[in-house]
Amino acid sequence: MGDTGNNDDSHVLTMKTVNPRAVEMEYAVRGPIVTRAVELGKELAAGAQKPFSKVLQANIGDCHATGQSPITFIRQVVACCTCPDLIDTANFPDDVRNKAKRILKGCKGESAGSYSASAGIDVIRQDIARYIHLRDDVPSKMEDIILCTGASDGIKTVLNLLMTGKDGNQRAGIMIPVPQYPLYSATLTEFNACPIPYYLDEDNKWGLDVGELKRALKEAKGRCIPRAICIINPGNPTGQVLSRENIESVIKFAYEEKLMILADEVYQHNIWAAGSQFFSFKKVMTEMEGGKYSKMELASFMSASKGYMGECGFRGGYAEIVNLQPDVKAILLKSISAKLCPPILGQVVIDTIVNPPVEGDTSFEVFQKEKSQVLALLKKKAQIVTELFNSIEGIKCNEVMGAMYAFPRIFLPPKAVAAAKALKQSPDFFYCLQLLEKTGLCTVPGSGFGEKPDTYHFRITILPKLEEMQAVLATFKDFHLSFLNEYK
Amino acid sequence: MGDTGNNDDSHVLTMKTVNPRAVEMEYAVRGPIVTRAVELGKELAAGAQKPFSKVLQANIGDCHATGQSPITFIRQVVACCTCPDLIDTANFPDDVRNKAKRILKGCKGESAGSYSASAGIDVIRQDIARYIHLRDDVPSKMEDIILCTGASDGIKTVLNLLMTGKDGNQRAGIMIPVPQYPLYSATLTEFNACPIPYYLDEDNKWGLDVGELKRALKEAKGRCIPRAICIINPGNPTGQVLSRENIESVIKFAYEEKLMILADEVYQHNIWAAGSQFFSFKKVMTEMEGGKYSKMELASFMSASKGYMGECGFRGGYAEIVNLQPDVKAILLKSISAKLCPPILGQVVIDTIVNPPVEGDTSFEVFQKEKSQVLALLKKKAQIVTELFNSIEGIKCNEVMGAMYAFPRIFLPPKAVAAAKALKQSPDFFYCLQLLEKTGLCTVPGSGFGEKPDTYHFRITILPKLEEMQAVLATFKDFHLSFLNEYK
Repeated sequence: MGDTGNNDDSHVLTMKTVNPRAVEMEYAVRGPIVTRAVELGKELAAGAQKPFSKVLQANIGDCHATGQSPITFIRQVVACCTCPDLIDTANFPDDVRNKAKRILKGCKGESAGSYSASAGIDVIRQDIARYIHLRDDVPSKMEDIILCTGASDGIKTVLNLLMTGKDGNQRAGIMIPVPQYPLYSATLTEFNACPIPYYLDEDNKWGLDVGELKRALKEAKGRCIPRAICIINPGNPTGQVLSRENIESVIKFAYEEKLMILADEVYQHNIWAAGSQFFSFKKVMTEMEGGKYSKMELASFMSASKGYMGECGFRGGYAEIVNLQPDVKAILLKSISAKLCPPILGQVVIDTIVNPPVEGDTSFEVFQKEKSQVLALLKKKAQIVTELFNSIEGIKCNEVMGAMYAFPRIFLPPKAVAAAKALKQSPDFFYCLQLLEKTGLCTVPGSGFGEKPDTYHFRITILPKLEEMQAVLATFKDFHLSFLNEYK
Repeated sequence: MGDTGNNDDSHVLTMKTVNPRAVEMEYAVRGPIVTRAVELGKELAAGAQKPFSKVLQANIGDCHATGQSPITFIRQVVACCTCPDLIDTANFPDDVRNKAKRILKGCKGESAGSYSASAGIDVIRQDIARYIHLRDDVPSKMEDIILCTGASDGIKTVLNLLMTGKDGNQRAGIMIPVPQYPLYSATLTEFNACPIPYYLDEDNKWGLDVGELKRALKEAKGRCIPRAICIINPGNPTGQVLSRENIESVIKFAYEEKLMILADEVYQHNIWAAGSQFFSFKKVMTEMEGGKYSKMELASFMSASKGYMGECGFRGGYAEIVNLQPDVKAILLKSISAKLCPPILGQVVIDTIVNPPVEGDTSFEVFQKEKSQVLALLKKKAQIVTELFNSIEGIKCNEVMGAMYAFPRIFLPPKAVAAAKALKQSPDFFYCLQLLEKTGLCTVPGSGFGEKPDTYHFRITILPKLEEMQAVLATFKDFHLSFLNEYK
């Protein structure tokens, strides 16, 4: 058996026989530009001369990777759950120790090394329900909560439930925004489902337009069985924060069209724009028109990876899934049973977020200070980025109202578009690759998220350190102007 | 929208519209008997009178839940990676501190809160390759290693790659043992693949018989496209340890039939029988007949959840996947990218297992003592369980040669079988439910793993504490004899 050639019949798996959905699946946030950025980093480390001294990873919402410090309280609780001896020996605040003890009591054998129920540890599910109740002023119950291995896992779990198990025009259709976080398109490809893309309105702060939702759904009928609509709020990659009125109109649309609502609300702590506020879809759905919509099936997703905590590596997340039929809920719980359970320490991190120190607790002041510092800095960077992009010729950027990304539109000269197409690259991929090679700034081309035809964008996180961000944005401006000049 | 009835059209998801594969999927290890056991525990806690004072969970390989203590070294390294301050303040041994520092250097931003590459942290992949090399005396390379969220996640990743993306008799066929750990059947149902069940030979220590493999494969042709054979060694639920000769015969069969080998080797540290030894499929494949088979595509799976560590809650695991075509390997890596990464602390636990303290290290003696105590106790319980079952009329149990389970055969009287069938229960489900209700012992019916027609079994773990195990096995004997008497 040789290792040469791609379609030799000495291998079980060749490009002809490997799962075609895995071949088709794309996840741009970790795509070829990122691979090239990693290579460049290694070249620099090996002493290569480049026009920059450091690769700046602004491609992924990975807070700690770009210098954010962990919140002390979170890590102390996790450490105590890991080594219970530390509860007595590590000189941690009493509220840390009490919280760890309480969670460990909820673990089998009082060990973070045991499996939990597949839906998660009961006491943490209770804490989540209480958090949601306080946040929304609308009741929530622990039976509606499942813990997950990051929000991604929860999203896949609910999408799996919505599949029809059939092919062709009998496949499940799922409405997804364009641009969208590519987990959605990747999962729909993997599941052989039918994406129903609807465009966000760039000219209207990336809001949702019901006319466009109707157009998209109408166009999809006959191609699939529409089952659900996904909304990302605050938006990824767009940074929008939906108004309450906009949310209401989406809920009415979903009700009329009998779609389940999947609300990706992982950036609920990341609200920057003056006058903007986070409203959960569940809150709005429950309160509008005297409860007319309050029985709709809805799943909301939350993560330990974003907000002020940014604990991506712990893979903590949860979903609140309301109004399922009891039999369907049993199927949901069965469907997650073979995965055993989400990581216990990821669940612990979630608990620290939904049950943080409150006034009077020993950890409260430090916690509050660390949290507000992180959020204040992100807010400042959101403003800086928005302003900078809008100060440059050939770029237009909606305000980063929330989340962790800017998604500026770049107006590329026809010659640049032609040059890209000659290389069989999307024009914004072509642009982002040159940006990387010339400045060390790693971003993700808009084509990886989807965009209206003949419009080009890129996504850049607001996570790098302020001084690095300022330096690189200055370089960026030079790059952009010289790019325009080169292809004018 | 009401919440009554099962097929009302006010819900998007009803039993008619929910994913039929999720309805069909079964995972008996967390099935109805376990649900009833949890209820019984709550009834006892509420003061109900039962013939027993405690529910004994012997249904799942969850070491810490049943009283096993964590290995100190593992938890200290994890705690240091969580709170790097502890490296200097917690008075942990120097080797613990150095290992934590080294791993943190491999994390982005030196934080366990950042994402790793989807395949895992480089330094940990290197350590795994070194561990495999030392174990097998056969080279291993980090590029062939991917970290996973428990072994289950790795198994699903490789099975996904083997799917054809097609329906009917064009579906992928995967050979799985009967009895088998039901993750395999659950995943194949979820993926719409075709299981090709082959029987393990109960009369021959649950070994694999090539004649039976050929029969199973022949019977499957025309129904599907056979792609791979899964072997669990040491066996779950059977507790067998395959001989080198048996492994060689399976490899030859897979070679001739052009099947990829999926070797579930998560119990590689759990070898109890005198004269038994763990041989990895990769080692045997590489060494037999001068390397004739050494280029076969093979995946081997390992877990942090079993062995002597039993750290189930950390969801750590890895797969070594060898001899993939380079293009296919790129697809594999892309296919895991949207999951972002396995939990960092689960990866850290894996590192402590593949890179443990060695002689001369400060932690060595304590580590060695704790490890050998856990393994010695499990070995003792494996012997006790085997002996006890074989001393009871109407029960026959192969030696628990390895892993964490006994899978005794129970010879049920025809009247018991008839009584079960009248209730539409499998006879061993009927038996296990009565066992639970009368003794508090929670086991899993053999039907959840598959078995030859008209044979009945149950799976019981050897994990409960020795004294509890002994007490409950005495009760078990009484139950069994009175059951036989009732239905004779």
